[in-house]
Amino acid sequence: MSCIFCRIIKGEIPALKLFESEKTLAFLDIGPLSKGHALVIPKYHGAKLADIPDDQLSEILPTLKKLVTATGATDYNILQNNGTIAHQQVHHVHFHMIPKPNDTEGLGISWPATSGDMEKLKALCEDIKAKIQ
Amino acid sequence: MSCIFCRIIKGEIPALKLFESEKTLAFLDIGPLSKGHALVIPKYHGAKLADIPDDQLSEILPTLKKLVTATGATDYNILQNNGTIAHQQVHHVHFHMIPKPNDTEGLGISWPATSGDMEKLKALCEDIKAKIQ
Repeated sequence: MSCIFCRIIKGEIPALKLFESEKTLAFLDIGPLSKGHALVIPKYHGAKLADIPDDQLSEILPTLKKLVTATGATDYNILQNNGTIAHQQVHHVHFHMIPKPNDTEGLGISWPATSGDMEKLKALCEDIKAKIQ
Repeated sequence: MSCIFCRIIKGEIPALKLFESEKTLAFLDIGPLSKGHALVIPKYHGAKLADIPDDQLSEILPTLKKLVTATGATDYNILQNNGTIAHQQVHHVHFHMIPKPNDTEGLGISWPATSGDMEKLKALCEDIKAKIQ
């Protein structure tokens, strides 16, 4: 068991714990992007969102809401990265709640939007719909 | 009722719908950051995450998982922005599922991490804990 977040859940590594429920744990990020930057994790171990059973995710969004309210954040980003190329650093699912108090603190985003080709998007839509279970 | 996403839910505006459940709607982003970039929204109208009742959020993460699986994304970002300064453009809660196939496509992130002052973080932790309901 070398997952650092599993070890935090077990109490083997200290963390600045904020809230614990049956299925989730919330704690402060110790390298915060802004004041109040916190993480919510499922206790169930999985690297990526699609690895976690639905029932183990049911307390994630309610817990994130608690953090928003308790920190008093009015503007904030919820971010959950999957895979090293997608900026994931710890391979146990974690949701960031990052207050955005001003332009310089908090999450910075670059948004390389494409002007979607509507015919291709329609074909893609049909393709994805056919694969949704 | 001028909210564009509420009008999509009602069918007053077309969208490339992928999946609909009792409480959520999923559709393709028409200005995609990468192939398969999609949105999941609660049907309940609210601008920010903290405005949506917990029970109206219960199908969001399961629906995002369906999109991940159906698009075949292996690396991806889940992002939900709250407030104009936090890059929110449509003021109805929406979760982006953005495949990250390579360094150039998909979400770009800048991460202005601070080296947290542990004493200040401990005090903040106690402060937030006391305010969590």
